[in-house]
Amino acid sequence: MSIAKVNLEDALASIGEHWRPHIVGEVNGSKLQVVKFKGEFVWHRHDDSEDVFLVLEGRLYIDLPDKTIELEPGELLVVPRGVEHRPRADEEVHVLNVELMGTVNTGDADDAGVLTAPEQYLSR
Amino acid sequence: MSIAKVNLEDALASIGEHWRPHIVGEVNGSKLQVVKFKGEFVWHRHDDSEDVFLVLEGRLYIDLPDKTIELEPGELLVVPRGVEHRPRADEEVHVLNVELMGTVNTGDADDAGVLTAPEQYLSR
Repeated sequence: MSIAKVNLEDALASIGEHWRPHIVGEVNGSKLQVVKFKGEFVWHRHDDSEDVFLVLEGRLYIDLPDKTIELEPGELLVVPRGVEHRPRADEEVHVLNVELMGTVNTGDADDAGVLTAPEQYLSR
Repeated sequence: MSIAKVNLEDALASIGEHWRPHIVGEVNGSKLQVVKFKGEFVWHRHDDSEDVFLVLEGRLYIDLPDKTIELEPGELLVVPRGVEHRPRADEEVHVLNVELMGTVNTGDADDAGVLTAPEQYLSR
């Protein structure tokens, strides 16, 4: 049986680049992924998936159309499907993110450029 | 717009009983729920849902048919659907759990008694 735990900080330590989510598990068709953010992402939305952000380390801002939500470690936000949002961080932040399998990190954004990441699993 | 963050420890502080999950959000048909465990749960399985355990505080043991996995804060385990498991904790542990909406916490166990919890949202 290949059931094994994931230490999230160890997983994050193996990731170099910012804005590159790495899948560490799957739950009912959604991917559990760890990702490091720093700087300003692109405004985007996901029409087919909620977007969950749980901060593990650092401080994350999620800009929404009418407000900004500030997240510290142990704080979680669910962005409903279809809602425009932009993650932003002054300093590096470590995040556990949940999205439907197959969801593109930059959603509908057509100006995302190199921020658009391939769907990839953490190598273990 | 009612998009609001959840501070997981604040959410947990509002829960008294052990083994009573409280939903704090939903992602693609699954429920994100906080729960306090202490003692030994009942062996059970979920045929229709993965079961994700992320430890926020304390130490959690997940007994599986052929081994036991020990989880500390920041460690996550995905129990695949159909796999028998039993959560266990010597001291109180705080957990973020993810299961399909509608999943019963005690799964297929027919001897769960009072451990079977109603599906309920955290009051905010």
